[in-house]
Amino acid sequence: MSGFSEDALTRDAFLGGRLHLWQPRSGYRAGVDPVLLAASVPAVAGQRVLELGCGVGAAILCLGARVPGLRLTGVERMPDHAALARRNGGTALEVVTADLSALPLEVRQRQFDHVLANPPYFDRGASISSQHRARESAHGEQTPLAEWVRVAGKRLAPKGQMHFIHRAERLPDLLRALPPDLGSIEVLPLIPREGRPAERVILRARKNGRAAFRLLAGLVMHEGARHLHDGDSFVPAIRAVLREGAALTF
Amino acid sequence: MSGFSEDALTRDAFLGGRLHLWQPRSGYRAGVDPVLLAASVPAVAGQRVLELGCGVGAAILCLGARVPGLRLTGVERMPDHAALARRNGGTALEVVTADLSALPLEVRQRQFDHVLANPPYFDRGASISSQHRARESAHGEQTPLAEWVRVAGKRLAPKGQMHFIHRAERLPDLLRALPPDLGSIEVLPLIPREGRPAERVILRARKNGRAAFRLLAGLVMHEGARHLHDGDSFVPAIRAVLREGAALTF
Repeated sequence: MSGFSEDALTRDAFLGGRLHLWQPRSGYRAGVDPVLLAASVPAVAGQRVLELGCGVGAAILCLGARVPGLRLTGVERMPDHAALARRNGGTALEVVTADLSALPLEVRQRQFDHVLANPPYFDRGASISSQHRARESAHGEQTPLAEWVRVAGKRLAPKGQMHFIHRAERLPDLLRALPPDLGSIEVLPLIPREGRPAERVILRARKNGRAAFRLLAGLVMHEGARHLHDGDSFVPAIRAVLREGAALTF
Repeated sequence: MSGFSEDALTRDAFLGGRLHLWQPRSGYRAGVDPVLLAASVPAVAGQRVLELGCGVGAAILCLGARVPGLRLTGVERMPDHAALARRNGGTALEVVTADLSALPLEVRQRQFDHVLANPPYFDRGASISSQHRARESAHGEQTPLAEWVRVAGKRLAPKGQMHFIHRAERLPDLLRALPPDLGSIEVLPLIPREGRPAERVILRARKNGRAAFRLLAGLVMHEGARHLHDGDSFVPAIRAVLREGAALTF
């Protein structure tokens, strides 16, 4: 049961219609980022996947739509959103209503091959530095980003992989928060247009990984130097992810 | 006086012949990286510039060749290299023979508008993780990278800027080492060829800076997908830096 009335909801197509999601008409709405996050996870059938802060389930259900046979668990703090995730996922998705800082024993007793998260973004503008020690509270985060990373690391099975998508300006905070048993870190910068700074990063890390850090070539999202016409201007690789459910391999 | 005999030295042209440097024939030899580092520093006449670990002076003298009227100081631990830096810089460069962890009072009493460094690289291969807590010693560094960053931050005047160039795999270590009073961090990935991971990063930070972290679009160094012919294949912007003493603006 969702706490939203039906007319406060929309039902939106993802992955070119391979997936439909109920989500609130106002407030945070799943866009491109959870789809890219899901596309970057190299999960294979039979693996256990946990999404922290799954919202209505966009990322984890996109992953489930691309890779059959996964065992999907989402954790969501807000009961209304958790209820929508249950409605969206049906029997394919286990949804646990919980704060990620206080996971119930049933989740804490389990380990996962993949943990993913698209933590909330706080757009406070460039005047708030993310580089200062009080940065977590400066961002107004109910749950500090470092706690998201810590909990993700704790829930990973040996050799399991974490994938986070976040604003590029939070990359230093993500890297600082990674516990020492997570290695083989890779960062994929997502660049809106050729030559621009990255707006998002996808961070991958492996539990017990020992490979050196890799900063990958940025992935340009849109064709052209600026937005020239209506309709999407995504480069073919991104359009394939968004409209055809392709993987984003790196 | 250098401890090297004359036939153990070469005299090499930099910046298309705008600068010539004596350097040891064997061991570490200045290549592209100090030139790129120097090109990235937006110094203006009259400013005070400190290079930590200046070696024979390649980076700071490239900067001096591009920007007239700077007050240049280099610190170098190895007396033979410090002597070569003095020979290379003449009256334009003050060279202090010292370990950066034990700077003499004459340097510790001063602040600088720019501090730059190209710390030694240790190529131990990907089997050594840079992500683990013992990472500094794992890299075999005589002076931990975090110490380079700490000392650079200490020597910066208010609003002064630090520029480091290093292997891209050390970016997490650089970011973790930045003290809280350094902000407005920008990272320029240097990408050997289109689509490849970054090999180097140039990290810029400002003392008391409060702007959000920026991950800039990667700068591709070479034309083409692979090395096809003898001679250089640098893209025009890089060739202008290396052969004509151009600035690298970002």
